Amino acid sequence: MSEQAPLTLNEAELRGLLDGCWAHVREKARDVVQGEEYAPVHGLSMEEHRARTSKQLLGLAETGMPAYGFPESVGGTDDIGASVVAFEMLVADMSLMVKMGVQFGLFGGAIKALGTDRHHRRYLPDVMSVALPGCFAMTETGHGSDVQRLRTTATYDAATEEFVVHTPDESARKDYIGNAARDGRMAVVFAQLRTPGQDGPLDHGVHALMVPIRDEAGRPLPGVGIEDCGPKAGLNGVDNGRLWFDGVRVPRTDLLDRYGQVAADGTYSSPIENPNRRFFTMLGTLIRGRISVAGGAGTATKAALGIAIRYADTRRQFTRPAGEDRPEQEVRILDYLAHQRKLLPALARTYGLHFAQEELVTRLHELSRVEERDEHAQRELESRAAGLKAIATWHATETIQTCREACGGSGYLAENRIPQLKADSDIFTTFEGDNTVLLQQLTKALLTNFQDSFGDLDQLGLARFMAGKAFETVIERTAALPLIERLIAAAPGRGDEAGLYNRGWHLELFEDREKHVLEGLAGRLRRARKDGGDAFEVFNVAQDHVLEAGRAHMDRVVLEAFVAGIDRCGDKSTAKLLNRLCDLYVLSVIEENRGWFLEHERLSTSRSKAVTAAVNDLCRGLRPYAVRLVDAFGLRDEWLGAPIALGAEHRRQGE
Amino acid sequence: MSEQAPLTLNEAELRGLLDGCWAHVREKARDVVQGEEYAPVHGLSMEEHRARTSKQLLGLAETGMPAYGFPESVGGTDDIGASVVAFEMLVADMSLMVKMGVQFGLFGGAIKALGTDRHHRRYLPDVMSVALPGCFAMTETGHGSDVQRLRTTATYDAATEEFVVHTPDESARKDYIGNAARDGRMAVVFAQLRTPGQDGPLDHGVHALMVPIRDEAGRPLPGVGIEDCGPKAGLNGVDNGRLWFDGVRVPRTDLLDRYGQVAADGTYSSPIENPNRRFFTMLGTLIRGRISVAGGAGTATKAALGIAIRYADTRRQFTRPAGEDRPEQEVRILDYLAHQRKLLPALARTYGLHFAQEELVTRLHELSRVEERDEHAQRELESRAAGLKAIATWHATETIQTCREACGGSGYLAENRIPQLKADSDIFTTFEGDNTVLLQQLTKALLTNFQDSFGDLDQLGLARFMAGKAFETVIERTAALPLIERLIAAAPGRGDEAGLYNRGWHLELFEDREKHVLEGLAGRLRRARKDGGDAFEVFNVAQDHVLEAGRAHMDRVVLEAFVAGIDRCGDKSTAKLLNRLCDLYVLSVIEENRGWFLEHERLSTSRSKAVTAAVNDLCRGLRPYAVRLVDAFGLRDEWLGAPIALGAEHRRQGE
Repeated sequence: MSEQAPLTLNEAELRGLLDGCWAHVREKARDVVQGEEYAPVHGLSMEEHRARTSKQLLGLAETGMPAYGFPESVGGTDDIGASVVAFEMLVADMSLMVKMGVQFGLFGGAIKALGTDRHHRRYLPDVMSVALPGCFAMTETGHGSDVQRLRTTATYDAATEEFVVHTPDESARKDYIGNAARDGRMAVVFAQLRTPGQDGPLDHGVHALMVPIRDEAGRPLPGVGIEDCGPKAGLNGVDNGRLWFDGVRVPRTDLLDRYGQVAADGTYSSPIENPNRRFFTMLGTLIRGRISVAGGAGTATKAALGIAIRYADTRRQFTRPAGEDRPEQEVRILDYLAHQRKLLPALARTYGLHFAQEELVTRLHELSRVEERDEHAQRELESRAAGLKAIATWHATETIQTCREACGGSGYLAENRIPQLKADSDIFTTFEGDNTVLLQQLTKALLTNFQDSFGDLDQLGLARFMAGKAFETVIERTAALPLIERLIAAAPGRGDEAGLYNRGWHLELFEDREKHVLEGLAGRLRRARKDGGDAFEVFNVAQDHVLEAGRAHMDRVVLEAFVAGIDRCGDKSTAKLLNRLCDLYVLSVIEENRGWFLEHERLSTSRSKAVTAAVNDLCRGLRPYAVRLVDAFGLRDEWLGAPIALGAEHRRQGE
Repeated sequence: MSEQAPLTLNEAELRGLLDGCWAHVREKARDVVQGEEYAPVHGLSMEEHRARTSKQLLGLAETGMPAYGFPESVGGTDDIGASVVAFEMLVADMSLMVKMGVQFGLFGGAIKALGTDRHHRRYLPDVMSVALPGCFAMTETGHGSDVQRLRTTATYDAATEEFVVHTPDESARKDYIGNAARDGRMAVVFAQLRTPGQDGPLDHGVHALMVPIRDEAGRPLPGVGIEDCGPKAGLNGVDNGRLWFDGVRVPRTDLLDRYGQVAADGTYSSPIENPNRRFFTMLGTLIRGRISVAGGAGTATKAALGIAIRYADTRRQFTRPAGEDRPEQEVRILDYLAHQRKLLPALARTYGLHFAQEELVTRLHELSRVEERDEHAQRELESRAAGLKAIATWHATETIQTCREACGGSGYLAENRIPQLKADSDIFTTFEGDNTVLLQQLTKALLTNFQDSFGDLDQLGLARFMAGKAFETVIERTAALPLIERLIAAAPGRGDEAGLYNRGWHLELFEDREKHVLEGLAGRLRRARKDGGDAFEVFNVAQDHVLEAGRAHMDRVVLEAFVAGIDRCGDKSTAKLLNRLCDLYVLSVIEENRGWFLEHERLSTSRSKAVTAAVNDLCRGLRPYAVRLVDAFGLRDEWLGAPIALGAEHRRQGE
């Protein structure tokens, strides 16, 4: 690989591949999000920014983009995948991205998913037109991750056929609610549903209701307390606020009752008997928000890399002495290995995440069209969404930070966009599910698959299981199954014999790691429980192991998606280039985790060192293509908005 | 270690230890920086913030704090160490910290270091009182890291006995200059000094001059162009700007001429013949700024950890089921291993860095009092300052980011301070020297020590050298030499025999790594050069190795400072606790770098796994002391300013 033949890059082919199934949505966004109205801005006051974002949202409503996510019955186009892709394209100002997500995705999405036809017809047209701006009031001050323990109550009063929505104390107030501080007229409020029973009230767990919060003039309604969360690190165009309810009454029909109905007399019924299953089913219908956040994090990452890589390709610093064949000259900073190492492995991972995201959105979209609910497929989707959201948003935070540093003082100036991208996307690691909690949730699901497939294995069962091929059914392939299997079959076997760039070896290695970490964890938890350990303690002392299992799983998922993505590339030379980028992804993941691979004797010490050398080689080999590889994401220049990425540095040097 | 006996922590003793040599300065800062005037704020416009910061600076000037850094001849107290410590205490608003640094440290410091008595008497009293607000105009748009190639010129005109200061083009404009956009009246301008010679102008390299930029009314002077850098990610109380000079004339006497004089007739002379040595000597006198930034990064880290750890100690989420001896209860998030792993190794490293910083400041202070310049000691100080600045500021960026995530949505609200700490300190990794450049500079100095001690070693020489003890003279001990040597001597030897918690083994292991990485690098560079490699290419392909050598060196420096710090602790039980914290520092560094230790067979696979288990054990063992360990830094509650760290969460739960 130290000899890397030059390759041609077919830009149209690559753009088409990256634009993927919803290319038309991306094109539409490129078309709509233009000009003064949508251009990145900085230096606005919070109030000015909020006003601008609200106005932009109204503008978007007129383009038809909001229709993607809604049923045809109310004038939507019922194209869930398109709605996620549209969201992620709004990187020119991420406040608009999130505001749109709140209005159409969370508020409208909850009405769609948890309500029934009656609610759809009544509310969704106004949601789409933004005639009815609304909130998704789930999180409370005291409970964020642990949604099941929310403490707002909705108590049915049969006498008036109303629910009484109430905030018992400060812990139960709704917090960080987008659209609450300024614009929202109604809120989908999640509350513990109570109906009267013979021996006192009956609890039915968390349900959602439509609660009006402001009148036509924008004044809080009686019984509703509203407070502004005030300035935040970023996203200051979004008006987050807090909500209290003091015995607010809403009609019985405004319970979003797809998964739980209350009859006029107060009788509760649900299509799902088990309250726990009901709760998780309801939450599961809201998965789109999480997937959208992963996508939005991806676009923010791409934008920051676009700025930093373009700048690094023109910015020069320090001099390379004259050689026989050239005069002394200042070096472009992207020619330094250290700079390549900052940006290019991050670019490679961004590509991998892009393909994984495309696959996830496609899966979400497919499942949304299936009549009969497939429990297993739904659970798999939710787990993968949790995992991808976690790793994509961590990657965004880390990469944008790196881009800031890679641009030096220029990267600190608001005019160069990176500060805003960093500050805006920063919350992505903890909203729509805290990443640590999500990764843990993913691993728990993987462990559950274990139990489902094999029952509560005894020691012997486990040993047999670890030796066998049965694992295949637990580690589900996410795409292009035959392709992956063919590549693995072609690998020359474990260890040093395979070339460092052998894709079959990569796939096998990642799968082997996932399998080993997960099996080790399962065994460890089982042993500790058998020894009489307290369930909480047993899980808690293994928490780092739990998180590692989730990461190992996602590394494999991303790799397989990357491989499947390249397989769809119609141009041979471009595919070759993408394969080098995929090599860089794989080998930098191996390098990062070489502690594990060495500890578990999956790599020899010499091969481990060779991996580091190969990462350096790949960085050098990919450097000439770096700018075109970021340009292929197709973010408009005006979305990047940063003078340093748009020729300012180049022009200055030309003086 | 899984059995960790409870320890008492003597809070006064620990505070005294951390406050160190300049405890009186810390106490003074605690006394002065109080009340409405200095309290953290958010939500100000840039103009409001700048006005507030300027006012605060004037307030500080009246407290006598600026006097620390200035000579007694002009009313200062000539206590360099105190001036650095005073700077780092201003965490209530880091805009004030940086504004103070610009005025007294950079502007005043340059006059002090590069000027002579004449300049001191004329300017420094007004610098101290802020009657003369000033700028340190070094960085240009085209040259930041590569100061030697600045392009502003100062050409001597013997006819008028003036220097003509000129900006030839946009690349040469001064950029990111603090105090330039709003307040500065004069600037220390770094420019290429030219005097007339017989065959055209003679170049003398970069020198500094006093250049007036605004009149009494605050208007730019003729020939001076000033532009505002506009809003930044943070530090918006500091007015950064750009400066152009169009043939601005300053009197000959306003050249800061300690290292280079121009006689009336234009004859140049300097106490340092070699222009390269002169340049680096001049830069070296400005080292205090870099050391101050390392200290400021440390305080920002401590503040963020203070907020996140106090919050994590009260915040509860998810329920632990009832056990035989206790009811069901919600778990404090600091009781989760994953949360401990986020915050406690970072706390341990913060302690280590604190001690390393104290040692560095002490060294700076000592050298400032020595009459005769000690070249070797000065070079060692500069290298260590470069390395510590790099690792301390990266640690700050990473840790504050982690704290943001650890506080969830609360950590995203401006009122909880973390966004401001993050945004303000973000530039620390690239100003006063880009970290990557600095770390490289450190390694180059370490390699130079090689050459100095042993000449240009041939292959044989290198082999002999690698086997021998000669390395000791290269890897200088930073403190407590006899103590460190005693501990190493007591270590039971390399490898598995030593207990995981044996400090002698730790010290030996870190030293061994540094030595091996550095020797490997030296050999690799030498071989590549011998094989006829181009000097730039040879160095560039090894750049990751270069950076690793710098990091390995600093890990050892920090460890030795930590050990020396604990040795100063007068309370046995407190010292024991600090030793556990030091264990956590060491073992988490080993864990992080276990890829290297395994590759180089410094750890067996089983011992490597044991290190991970030990980190978990230590986290659990230290968790009960975490709040007191951050409180010991002695940052006033009002400096933290965050409601979530000051009882809001606790009160809420008490409802």
